[in-house]
Amino acid sequence: MTELLSDTGRKTMLDPLCKAGWQIEADRDAISKTYQFADFTEAFAFMTRAALWAEKWNHHPEWTNVYKTVHVTLTTHDVGGLSALDAKLARKLDQLVT
Amino acid sequence: MTELLSDTGRKTMLDPLCKAGWQIEADRDAISKTYQFADFTEAFAFMTRAALWAEKWNHHPEWTNVYKTVHVTLTTHDVGGLSALDAKLARKLDQLVT
Repeated sequence: MTELLSDTGRKTMLDPLCKAGWQIEADRDAISKTYQFADFTEAFAFMTRAALWAEKWNHHPEWTNVYKTVHVTLTTHDVGGLSALDAKLARKLDQLVT
Repeated sequence: MTELLSDTGRKTMLDPLCKAGWQIEADRDAISKTYQFADFTEAFAFMTRAALWAEKWNHHPEWTNVYKTVHVTLTTHDVGGLSALDAKLARKLDQLVT
């Protein structure tokens, strides 16, 4: 069952993500990151791979694409903030670009 | 060669788009529209089809996806405003959802 991250969960899951470039949003309990690619095809290829994982896990990003830039925001609407699912998807997105 | 829409071009190209749900942005020379789909797979399928046309025409949208919603903004950065390319892509996007 999905639930808000505990204080311990936040430390163990979010700290490594913040070191990897994720930022905790100032105005809501969410994390975000901006990915830069070589061009649109690379950016959209990333989005396509990410979309498959998002659908598989039934956990979908809020994301904006402008040419070679993809800005991703993750939060868990069902619980009104960050859950382990967000950390899991964030790690997967980072894996996709390495 | 891409150039800003003339007054006549704006009328003939933008009026039909505005009737089809496109809006002219208040703060920049751009048009935008929000598409709603049944779910994420439908929304991303639309984006994938749109991406192929965007790349083919080398004219890319600024777009945001949140689950089953896709918000699209079109403008032509090279000319600092709306060109015929924006109208062409807007019409194509509308075709993709009909």
